[in-house]
Amino acid sequence: MTNKITIAIDAMGGDNSPAKTIQGVHYFLEKNKSNNDYLIHLYGDSSKISYEINKFKIPSDLVKIVHTDGVVSDEETPLTAIKNSKNTSMWNCIKSQTEGTSDISLSAGNTGVLLVVSRMILKMIDKVNKPALAGLWPSNKDLNVVLDLGANIECNEENLVDFAELGSALYKSLYPNKKPIVSLLNVGSEEIKGTEVLKRTFKKLKEISNSNSFSFNGYVEGNKIMSGNSNVIVTDGFTGNIALKTAEGTAKFITDNLKKNLTQNFFTKISLIFSYFSLKKFKDKLDPRKYNGAIFLGLNGPVVKSHGGTDALGFYHSIDLCYRIVKGNLMKEIKNNLNDLSSD
Amino acid sequence: MTNKITIAIDAMGGDNSPAKTIQGVHYFLEKNKSNNDYLIHLYGDSSKISYEINKFKIPSDLVKIVHTDGVVSDEETPLTAIKNSKNTSMWNCIKSQTEGTSDISLSAGNTGVLLVVSRMILKMIDKVNKPALAGLWPSNKDLNVVLDLGANIECNEENLVDFAELGSALYKSLYPNKKPIVSLLNVGSEEIKGTEVLKRTFKKLKEISNSNSFSFNGYVEGNKIMSGNSNVIVTDGFTGNIALKTAEGTAKFITDNLKKNLTQNFFTKISLIFSYFSLKKFKDKLDPRKYNGAIFLGLNGPVVKSHGGTDALGFYHSIDLCYRIVKGNLMKEIKNNLNDLSSD
Repeated sequence: MTNKITIAIDAMGGDNSPAKTIQGVHYFLEKNKSNNDYLIHLYGDSSKISYEINKFKIPSDLVKIVHTDGVVSDEETPLTAIKNSKNTSMWNCIKSQTEGTSDISLSAGNTGVLLVVSRMILKMIDKVNKPALAGLWPSNKDLNVVLDLGANIECNEENLVDFAELGSALYKSLYPNKKPIVSLLNVGSEEIKGTEVLKRTFKKLKEISNSNSFSFNGYVEGNKIMSGNSNVIVTDGFTGNIALKTAEGTAKFITDNLKKNLTQNFFTKISLIFSYFSLKKFKDKLDPRKYNGAIFLGLNGPVVKSHGGTDALGFYHSIDLCYRIVKGNLMKEIKNNLNDLSSD
Repeated sequence: MTNKITIAIDAMGGDNSPAKTIQGVHYFLEKNKSNNDYLIHLYGDSSKISYEINKFKIPSDLVKIVHTDGVVSDEETPLTAIKNSKNTSMWNCIKSQTEGTSDISLSAGNTGVLLVVSRMILKMIDKVNKPALAGLWPSNKDLNVVLDLGANIECNEENLVDFAELGSALYKSLYPNKKPIVSLLNVGSEEIKGTEVLKRTFKKLKEISNSNSFSFNGYVEGNKIMSGNSNVIVTDGFTGNIALKTAEGTAKFITDNLKKNLTQNFFTKISLIFSYFSLKKFKDKLDPRKYNGAIFLGLNGPVVKSHGGTDALGFYHSIDLCYRIVKGNLMKEIKNNLNDLSSD
């Protein structure tokens, strides 16, 4: 491995790939012209990838194609994936980390297979029992990390404490000079609320709060996830997945209704002329593509999952996330946090 | 009891009461001038209530004041409430149902105490083990019922099946000619997804689907709660509470940002002139006051909980909900549904 940040990309995963993934790479290169600390490795059908690459002026010294024959289909299940996917772009993109040719892997392909294959190839970090899927949420201040978003349906207090450490490490890799504030998602903010697992987690997090890893802020309710008062919000994968999707559904419901109302007649169309730039800013802030990319934490190497249905701009944001995570030394932050935990 | 619908209202509960509750009653009377099938009983400090009533032209034949000395404070805990609250407006407002002087009870007071006191006075329906708090959510079609929103942190499959029956009965009382479509909230729509409790509930609901009570539509994910394809969404109280509050938080985040962007400069202020009526329609549709009122189900009498912080208009919507529920024969619908269940 060079001392440059090397991002391994599954160029074939997700809708409309590799056209979308390569255009995403193009956006990334355009935005990072002045940086020369990275390399991109593209895994997939080399002729299809080359065809897309030729549409843009992509410098060949920054991008390398690694040919693979297969692609993980959306129909593949985690159960059969290990047998069937060894020649795929996804498998080899992850495998590159153990071979020492990349620092991080990114795919927009089949989520279930990605989780299983990543875990199989990269293996769990010694002290961690369950991996977690972390997402970035917009907040009133900037953004925060929420985990687990669905890797584990059921979690005990050890898992949730691990998630606090993993999520804090992720936050620190994105914001190097901030000490993260961690909260635990619950149905009330009083100490007596919630399940027995949450109460035990609360106690443990309180004990290790103000270690080097994070400060613990207690329970947070669903309506405060986006308040900006917490940087890392910890929950089990069932609850996190329901919260994430409910937020997505609510946002869609509201913006669809807004759109309908603002385009319904002549007057509202005139109004759009005057509010165009402000509404654009509003739309940009809420654009889900900006927050595209869930980070699979707890393995001996970082894996980022892009939404399968996102477009080139969304995929660009996932590449950018990979770049920032490695630059922020995620794996070192995780190691430090877990050492903190075991010394308590 | 007369054969008129009698709504017992705790006039003292919630912020800014009884001013807000009485103004809410005033709105209700104004909207229902042409109906003469109801009576309102107001529980609380008679001099304070009379003072508020005198601000409006409230016909004395429709409204009766029942004096009580005490008020349940926000600081009262469910543990001490039973001892301390027997002389309160809340207690007596619920008690009126067992005394045969009302059909339904409404309070904007302390939620925890309301749940405990209601359960103690009204008692559980024989065949139901746990009561549930049901809410109305806006959807792309009209509205749907979601339960449990927080009465029970942990639920088994029997509880969730009961919730399906209770929620369907509520929906039928609001929409008498529709057979409700029930869905089970989960992290995926495939049958293999979710916890063991959910899988067992899925199996049971599938067995009793297409009874007189409801049709079962399988699992629904958080982003589809508002799609309009389900009328009743069943979940445990922990998950339901997280989903509800996350939706509230997301809606607030978006509308706050929209407001900020639409009032930020001269041009956007002009745009508001042209879009005023359309934005008002948009705001009205999303106005949480329209959906104010959670229904406590599973007891031998219906209890509605209004948000404590809502205003007179929000409280009016809760009174209206009480009126519609009793008119739609909620308790009879519940009985029919539970009979259906035991005959399966």
